[in-house]
Amino acid sequence: MGFYKPLDYQKWAKDLDFISWDCYPEPGDTPAETALQHDLMRGIKRQESFVLMEQTPSVTNWQPYNRLKRPGEMRLLSYQGADAIQFFQIRRSIGACEKFHGAVIDHAGRDDTRVFREVEQLGDELEQLGDVFLEGRTPAEMAILFDWDNWWALEYSAGPSIRMKYLDAVRDYYTAAYESNVPVDIIGVEDEFNSYKIIIAPLLYMTKPGIDKKFRDFVKNGGIFVTTYFSGIVDEHDLVIQGGYPGRLRDILGIWVEENDALPEGEKNSFVYKGNLYPAEILCDLMHLEGAEALSVYEKDFYQEMPVITRNRLGQGYAYYVGTRSNREFYHKFLEDIFTEAKITETMITPKGVEATIRVRDDRKILFLMNHNKENKQITLNDDYTDLLTGKEYKTGNSIEIEQRGVFVLLKINK
Amino acid sequence: MGFYKPLDYQKWAKDLDFISWDCYPEPGDTPAETALQHDLMRGIKRQESFVLMEQTPSVTNWQPYNRLKRPGEMRLLSYQGADAIQFFQIRRSIGACEKFHGAVIDHAGRDDTRVFREVEQLGDELEQLGDVFLEGRTPAEMAILFDWDNWWALEYSAGPSIRMKYLDAVRDYYTAAYESNVPVDIIGVEDEFNSYKIIIAPLLYMTKPGIDKKFRDFVKNGGIFVTTYFSGIVDEHDLVIQGGYPGRLRDILGIWVEENDALPEGEKNSFVYKGNLYPAEILCDLMHLEGAEALSVYEKDFYQEMPVITRNRLGQGYAYYVGTRSNREFYHKFLEDIFTEAKITETMITPKGVEATIRVRDDRKILFLMNHNKENKQITLNDDYTDLLTGKEYKTGNSIEIEQRGVFVLLKINK
Amino acid sequence: MGFYKPLDYQKWAKDLDFISWDCYPEPGDTPAETALQHDLMRGIKRQESFVLMEQTPSVTNWQPYNRLKRPGEMRLLSYQGADAIQFFQIRRSIGACEKFHGAVIDHAGRDDTRVFREVEQLGDELEQLGDVFLEGRTPAEMAILFDWDNWWALEYSAGPSIRMKYLDAVRDYYTAAYESNVPVDIIGVEDEFNSYKIIIAPLLYMTKPGIDKKFRDFVKNGGIFVTTYFSGIVDEHDLVIQGGYPGRLRDILGIWVEENDALPEGEKNSFVYKGNLYPAEILCDLMHLEGAEALSVYEKDFYQEMPVITRNRLGQGYAYYVGTRSNREFYHKFLEDIFTEAKITETMITPKGVEATIRVRDDRKILFLMNHNKENKQITLNDDYTDLLTGKEYKTGNSIEIEQRGVFVLLKINK
Repeated sequence: MGFYKPLDYQKWAKDLDFISWDCYPEPGDTPAETALQHDLMRGIKRQESFVLMEQTPSVTNWQPYNRLKRPGEMRLLSYQGADAIQFFQIRRSIGACEKFHGAVIDHAGRDDTRVFREVEQLGDELEQLGDVFLEGRTPAEMAILFDWDNWWALEYSAGPSIRMKYLDAVRDYYTAAYESNVPVDIIGVEDEFNSYKIIIAPLLYMTKPGIDKKFRDFVKNGGIFVTTYFSGIVDEHDLVIQGGYPGRLRDILGIWVEENDALPEGEKNSFVYKGNLYPAEILCDLMHLEGAEALSVYEKDFYQEMPVITRNRLGQGYAYYVGTRSNREFYHKFLEDIFTEAKITETMITPKGVEATIRVRDDRKILFLMNHNKENKQITLNDDYTDLLTGKEYKTGNSIEIEQRGVFVLLKINK
Repeated sequence: MGFYKPLDYQKWAKDLDFISWDCYPEPGDTPAETALQHDLMRGIKRQESFVLMEQTPSVTNWQPYNRLKRPGEMRLLSYQGADAIQFFQIRRSIGACEKFHGAVIDHAGRDDTRVFREVEQLGDELEQLGDVFLEGRTPAEMAILFDWDNWWALEYSAGPSIRMKYLDAVRDYYTAAYESNVPVDIIGVEDEFNSYKIIIAPLLYMTKPGIDKKFRDFVKNGGIFVTTYFSGIVDEHDLVIQGGYPGRLRDILGIWVEENDALPEGEKNSFVYKGNLYPAEILCDLMHLEGAEALSVYEKDFYQEMPVITRNRLGQGYAYYVGTRSNREFYHKFLEDIFTEAKITETMITPKGVEATIRVRDDRKILFLMNHNKENKQITLNDDYTDLLTGKEYKTGNSIEIEQRGVFVLLKINK
Repeated sequence: MGFYKPLDYQKWAKDLDFISWDCYPEPGDTPAETALQHDLMRGIKRQESFVLMEQTPSVTNWQPYNRLKRPGEMRLLSYQGADAIQFFQIRRSIGACEKFHGAVIDHAGRDDTRVFREVEQLGDELEQLGDVFLEGRTPAEMAILFDWDNWWALEYSAGPSIRMKYLDAVRDYYTAAYESNVPVDIIGVEDEFNSYKIIIAPLLYMTKPGIDKKFRDFVKNGGIFVTTYFSGIVDEHDLVIQGGYPGRLRDILGIWVEENDALPEGEKNSFVYKGNLYPAEILCDLMHLEGAEALSVYEKDFYQEMPVITRNRLGQGYAYYVGTRSNREFYHKFLEDIFTEAKITETMITPKGVEATIRVRDDRKILFLMNHNKENKQITLNDDYTDLLTGKEYKTGNSIEIEQRGVFVLLKINK
């Protein structure tokens, strides 16, 4: 399911005992996309652990092209986020619309198939690991705000651009953090803000009562708040807040947005940030400074030299406004800078495509290394660890090879 | 609205006191497209002036990508055709489906916005100009026939090609005249023909009773009549006129069209006209001369050497048949030739993208120069003029610079 | 109509006296496509001859772009398969939705049009030929199995790939045979198998009761049986046959298919067959040998080195399994090899685009040569013939020139 627009999981979660979901990545989905969906599930019940109720051991049958999961792929995905995993389905039916959906037991009815053997191996591993990381917590210092009402209101409104999509804006920031191995909590407007160093609220079109006060206090107390183009526009009834955009967030951000220019597909403006040129796409906010400083300005068109990225000092913290949509390189550079400012460090430095996450339970810190690449990679460890699957011990600075689609589950050795 | 297929404006106009319309150019629309729509509105009430009831001062909200009108753009469009202009809307609403549509007063509620100041400036200018050009007439010597029944019948019929569109054929000829600064009246089948030197009836598939007589008389009396492929096919009941295409127009044109070959997208024939090679696209009529002379023949396929453009002498005038669809370069060259033949001269010679139109009222002749380019242009004046906005006087041969998106309103000095 | 999915012609044919159909090739249709549809019509009534009830003498009006049939094209198509031809329509109507559909008599009402004269010439020829080839038979030694229930079941099922289409698989093999001038019968599951040397059943997803026995006996008695990926999957109720794919065909083919990997558009595997590299597309079956020999293996991915084309000896014959979809070059090479194995020779060797077919009646053997090219071609005759249209006699080895879109109807001289 992942991000399912018709249903506000955050409202439903209040009445649920625990969270479970069905994970069926589509061919184009990146590992970051799946990680984001896992983090959403974690977030809707106050960052508690969750169950992966359904995944296919091998193949779906309802996608246009149903690729087999490659050897190791099912195991890799199984370690990516949940506390418990189940499969759909134990045995392939002989009729009806899901007869070609993958199963632990195939139509051949044999236990020597590739798929059966992979499930068997994973079962052995999980038995061996026991409950070592169950109900562990992810130690995130950064949060991304996600709000279903905002999603509905934003995409229900006519204008200014059909390409302006809430999930895209969320992915822009999430993916940059994920690729840097910085853990992220996905939070709702009712969650507490004070345990975080950074909160990013992309495309926060709707500002519900009190949300501005929460952000104002958060920043005054030293937090870093980031929001973007077309934010602060309406109240909880989708009625525009008059007097100038971004409405209730205006004093926090120290700007006034006068107009929004929607760029057709293929058209771009651009800006220079810290010496590099980045594209400005989809929507360009035309704004005036009201206390904030401009970190970057537009490079062309009639709003050349108008601010595009601003920073406002408020109390002990900073409020950033990113007035347009840019590209992967920009979001990486921008997050790198605010991570430095907030003194947030990554879980571990890994080669591209190798995910490193941590789950903490009691005094145990378990590191998961997951290689999403189709090639083996070398990793240099940043601490002393015990390999929970082999029993081997590693020292800080040791280099280990992780197989393509391979997984390490490492327990940090407390000194 | 512009060309709105479901409603026959020409029939409605009979019961209306004056004409008004709402002009919302879409991103791909050229200045010629807007001018054509203005000329249509002028034409449906015997070339009287009209009111622009709605235009946006800045932006729409219902297009896929809602670009801001650039500085000067609203003013430029305001001078392009109407006698009076109004805006949608005075103030942005805070709710409902048009809350992001542009307005004179924005959600900010301020009178120092870019948009408010542009509206203010235009208001000052219009006050200064007074009624100098109101109810003025456009001195057109060329007309294009446009008929809703023909539009409906042509595009309702199955075959010969889905790419054969009435408006495209109208645009082919209109745009070439517009880009040459030759004024054009858009007329209906009931309008009088005799005040024109040239009448073009593109794709005149339906020939209503009496229309052939009007054209026959028009040509006999010295007029130049032009029609195209797939014309003269049916009567007013969409029943084919038997005996050979183009039916009732056959003797006027001096040809017999035996077959119509529809070319798939990407396929072309070609022809040489006055020494240059031009493409033949969409539909190629296969015709025989019956008195007309061939001005050009097809270059290939089994109808190589068959006529594609013909001219028939009838009385004092000429009837032309253009048996296929070609490109911009051809229509420019072809119109240039018939303008010479009809002794029609352009309003003024201007750089590409600078529109020159005239409105005549009593003994006053007012010249509008409108620069649709994003760069300034130099223009050499063809007469003595007073600049109605600055009071400056110019002599024949003076060179003036017109700003990007700039406008001059010049009164010809009567000698 | 051709292959019309909603209607099972084979079931209807039992209650029909003779077969007729309407042939309207679409612009992209190759001569092979039309030939396949003719052979389907022949096949649904035990390879009897059929009537072409409708074809247009010149043009349709319901296609997006209605090209004229080029000079000679209508005559060429008239000789391609039927025993009798009729036209839609004798005279163009003046109204309603088909008023621009081609006709023998045009709206002009004249008998000197190109189209009328072509129909006249064809009529003269047919009168001259008399009944010489009527009710003739095509001497095919190879058959392709086609089954409507299989079509419905296969394409109704969800998965594994939306690009896996029954007709495409049929065309792969038919076209290669057609382009080699090897006659093919299209047969149904109830037809007898024993008169053929080769039977190909592409994508035989559904195996009805008894069909495996018919194939088993056919192979045992020396026949060559070919089937493909995703065959032998379900029974007549669309219920999967358990125990391992390809179900009832498994012992005949000597393989076990463990998994099916659907490749997204643009992705390919590959294999080497008889020294040349060919693509593997759409679906790749992952199989194990159970008695068959591997003629080729996959070149990459995790199933590199697994068999992709296999051959199983059974009694006096062979059963082939082609576990993926490949390209034109592969199907030509593969059929060439099994033709050699089965001692099947082509009707005649001709230049590309020149079709050679035979109809046998009593002791008469009539050879049709049809040039689908837009250029003339030279053909070397393989026997002594009388030209039935000119009376001319030719000897073995004579070279004749066939015009673009030309036709020869030659009677073999019995020695």
